[in-house]
Amino acid sequence: MIFENIKEPTLILDKSIAIANIKKMVEKAQKNNLIFRPHFKTHQSADIGEWFRRFGVDKITVSSVKMAKYFADAGWKNITIAFPLNIREITDIQELAKKIELNILISSVEHIEKINFIIKSQLNFFIKIDAGYNRAGILADDFTTIEKILNYSKNNKLLNFKGFLSHYGNTYSAENKQDVLKIFNNSNEKLKVLKQKYINSYPDLKISIGDTPSCSIADNFSGIDEIRPGNFIFYDLMQLNLGVCKYNNIAVKMLCPVIDKYPQRNEILIYGGAVHFSKEFIIDKNGIKNFGQIINLYKSEEKTSVKNTYIKNLSQEHGIVSAEKNAFNKIEIGDLLEIIPVHSCLSANLVKKYLSTDNITIQIMK
Amino acid sequence: MIFENIKEPTLILDKSIAIANIKKMVEKAQKNNLIFRPHFKTHQSADIGEWFRRFGVDKITVSSVKMAKYFADAGWKNITIAFPLNIREITDIQELAKKIELNILISSVEHIEKINFIIKSQLNFFIKIDAGYNRAGILADDFTTIEKILNYSKNNKLLNFKGFLSHYGNTYSAENKQDVLKIFNNSNEKLKVLKQKYINSYPDLKISIGDTPSCSIADNFSGIDEIRPGNFIFYDLMQLNLGVCKYNNIAVKMLCPVIDKYPQRNEILIYGGAVHFSKEFIIDKNGIKNFGQIINLYKSEEKTSVKNTYIKNLSQEHGIVSAEKNAFNKIEIGDLLEIIPVHSCLSANLVKKYLSTDNITIQIMK
Repeated sequence: MIFENIKEPTLILDKSIAIANIKKMVEKAQKNNLIFRPHFKTHQSADIGEWFRRFGVDKITVSSVKMAKYFADAGWKNITIAFPLNIREITDIQELAKKIELNILISSVEHIEKINFIIKSQLNFFIKIDAGYNRAGILADDFTTIEKILNYSKNNKLLNFKGFLSHYGNTYSAENKQDVLKIFNNSNEKLKVLKQKYINSYPDLKISIGDTPSCSIADNFSGIDEIRPGNFIFYDLMQLNLGVCKYNNIAVKMLCPVIDKYPQRNEILIYGGAVHFSKEFIIDKNGIKNFGQIINLYKSEEKTSVKNTYIKNLSQEHGIVSAEKNAFNKIEIGDLLEIIPVHSCLSANLVKKYLSTDNITIQIMK
Repeated sequence: MIFENIKEPTLILDKSIAIANIKKMVEKAQKNNLIFRPHFKTHQSADIGEWFRRFGVDKITVSSVKMAKYFADAGWKNITIAFPLNIREITDIQELAKKIELNILISSVEHIEKINFIIKSQLNFFIKIDAGYNRAGILADDFTTIEKILNYSKNNKLLNFKGFLSHYGNTYSAENKQDVLKIFNNSNEKLKVLKQKYINSYPDLKISIGDTPSCSIADNFSGIDEIRPGNFIFYDLMQLNLGVCKYNNIAVKMLCPVIDKYPQRNEILIYGGAVHFSKEFIIDKNGIKNFGQIINLYKSEEKTSVKNTYIKNLSQEHGIVSAEKNAFNKIEIGDLLEIIPVHSCLSANLVKKYLSTDNITIQIMK
């Protein structure tokens, strides 16, 4: 990283940490006999995708048809779109399914009805299950709906049922690791019921889950066949706050120029706003909103650590940092602050590129 | 707008409303003898910039050096960068100042010291004043700092003092129109003191202000020379909630496909998440978080209005809509929902393009 060249908010990617995070998750999947299908919506980069390939990863998850096309163009041949079917995109989905092994999500009878009517070539689908998050999917005990969907598949050989897929996104609102594990175990139980119920009729059915909090800390994946975590490659302040990663597992940090200082309120203005960090925040243990944690201060290449200093507010391009007195005194106009973003996926999506610690600019999907 | 072609969250721009908003603000500026220097960070589009030029606008505001370069390339010759000087960008600023009439903001003695030392050609600056927002700038009664800055300008003919600039961003947190006007008037008083104090030494000094809430509803601009509102071209849910615009003044709306329905909780899943809307929300009068207000439902080109229905939560690509029972029953999978974004500037920055109501795709700055 050439310190002097950084003029704007810049997302620094520590490649060695990211690779270590990938390696750890690959090994965990291997140890537990799980298919590893990482979610690429976090990094959204064909170049970073290659880092996974070196570990033998050949199946991935994405969150949109557009993203599926981007990674198919980058050579990925087995992709799950982990977003319930958007029936407005059926034509695009069919086109893509001719080129690669594509899995889509069905979360209602209307989805399968519509697709059954239109489809002309083979298409794989998972049934999306709501195991307690209450965002999307069919309730795990709604066997009536599940069986209506399965009936379409029985009657149409082009519709290939792959299994049940769920995202335990409620782990993100957990208080701590114990709560994460409780959600994980409760949700797993629901999916295991489905597996037991349908495995005889569908011996190849897979159970696919995959939030980063669960996958990072769980040890017992019994009954699960596939994991799809995404955020773990970078982690962020939200994950740190949950206790599912450590400081030194966080692979992306924003470097922001110091613009001005306000001694009367121990606050610092940085170049870095909602268009770089998003407006995501955590509420810390003292009930304070935190839009990003400052961990280091750079003066030329020299780095010193900073404590108890965080972004208290963000507008479009401005960030207001609340600094502990000692940190405030050290920080000068023109310095750079190194900041852990609250949600690395959203920050990456906003700034659209990374500067790696070996000084290479890595682009993401446009 | 070709309804059938919309597959993804799409920001629809009603050109006639936007033009009417521009016209109204141009006329208000003329009536009050104000220089009109609209902030282009809202739309970030060279094409939309042209709509202003037709009304004789030839001075603009931007929020970054990068944005200044973009609009300079689009032919704008008089630009204020309404963000305090980032000393890491002085070289770029000097380059640009050779080509166009560029105004920068100085908000500390260190800024002017640094620039005084480096500068080789003429540069205009405003002194950035904090009139109560407490985000950025020199406190309006800190004459010591102001005079230290002015002294540099006296001693260096390349440093051309233009006046005092402030942003009353605290109007965005006002409860209602009366509060907005109170903040506006109190802040104006502080700037008038500065004007009276320095006008004899600097007969050409200008007072520049410009938040959308104030500029939309104020009638008395005495003492003010220039306004710089930006958001008014589009408005949004935040402005509507403040009472400074009406429904029919809002020029941008997001169209989102309906993905699924959950009758047990009267909720609807849409394709439209934090990467389209940002995570900005308002708290409505009942204390409920609202990430976007649904106003219309499209089935093919047929439009029906929708009441009491809003986005209650957003993740990366998913939006969860809480629907009033009647609306819930009308909305079907595959329909499109028309949604007022909470903060139009952030939504535009995320989706990077508009579809105008006359069916033209308008790109924004990359």
